[in-house]
Amino acid sequence: MDDERLERQFEFLLELDKEKNIDRQTYLADGKRKENDAEHAWHMAVMALVLSEYSNENIDILRTVSMILIHDVVEIYAGDTYAYDEEGKKDQKERETNAADRLFSLLPEDQGVKFRQLWNEFEERKTPESKFANTLDNVQPSMLNNASEGRSWKEHKVTVSGLMKRQSYTCEGSEKLWKYALSRFIMPNIENGTIIEK
Amino acid sequence: MDDERLERQFEFLLELDKEKNIDRQTYLADGKRKENDAEHAWHMAVMALVLSEYSNENIDILRTVSMILIHDVVEIYAGDTYAYDEEGKKDQKERETNAADRLFSLLPEDQGVKFRQLWNEFEERKTPESKFANTLDNVQPSMLNNASEGRSWKEHKVTVSGLMKRQSYTCEGSEKLWKYALSRFIMPNIENGTIIEK
Repeated sequence: MDDERLERQFEFLLELDKEKNIDRQTYLADGKRKENDAEHAWHMAVMALVLSEYSNENIDILRTVSMILIHDVVEIYAGDTYAYDEEGKKDQKERETNAADRLFSLLPEDQGVKFRQLWNEFEERKTPESKFANTLDNVQPSMLNNASEGRSWKEHKVTVSGLMKRQSYTCEGSEKLWKYALSRFIMPNIENGTIIEK
Repeated sequence: MDDERLERQFEFLLELDKEKNIDRQTYLADGKRKENDAEHAWHMAVMALVLSEYSNENIDILRTVSMILIHDVVEIYAGDTYAYDEEGKKDQKERETNAADRLFSLLPEDQGVKFRQLWNEFEERKTPESKFANTLDNVQPSMLNNASEGRSWKEHKVTVSGLMKRQSYTCEGSEKLWKYALSRFIMPNIENGTIIEK
């Protein structure tokens, strides 16, 4: 058995366990605790399986799901940067690139390169698969924020303009899902003042 | 927009959020808290992407990952039955079948049937994909139990014969991964008395 290869693969897989301790700012639907990155990635991956028919363009579903499963793993080293944290966003790119170098190099080289490219693809948002994955990365927390009565939006005093900036590219992966999320998850929370005008 | 279809899909997807509150008996690698079903499914799905080369037979990776992502969702209604809980296992099949009927029927019929079949396939362990997914369902907790110094094995006084019964089919999906898990994760814990002889 090629033990060295397997050892490197398991070293990476065990390191990934730490993603379960990276909390996000979004609460679970019941509002009781914050969601972590591993749960978020799982939820998004199932969403991709169920909702791929609404992608603006034809997509390779395995490629999309793979991208989703690893899109946040760099936060194991770089931490979660909240979508509305303008200060934290300043060096986010640098922190995450360094984290990607470190984390994916645990893998055998061929796989490390492959996963690193997949992570880059998600970040760049240029391909149909990465556009759809990024749409889900915005729709999933909108769904949970709405279900938890906007708890995270309230805590962070999220404004309409801040939210619209964040959501500006949601339509790029799926116009249908953007319209649905806007009408069902976002607009009701603007109308009732949970998301505040500025 | 076909809102009724989308509404049913989102009803299912929001219901799935509850999987994040279904705790398993396995601890995270750091031993600090128990893992939940959503985290477990995410971890297994990444393992499938990284380790598929070791499957005994050629497998469709998207099918395998899809199966993994939904293999525990019925526990939202049926609860987690610990692998060594002989009493709970008596009506496990009935509880989980009823839960599957209820949960997958939230989806539009075509998708409900598809996911239900995928769940059945995992349970039956007859296809190459389901055999490999079941191998990972045993290897993943073995990796974490070993990393957490056997905390869950100790708490449940797991015996060599109990563990070997549970692991009897791990080799069916991948002989290589079974041998690796046996030598690296299980044997050291038999040798140091964490998993007890009876």
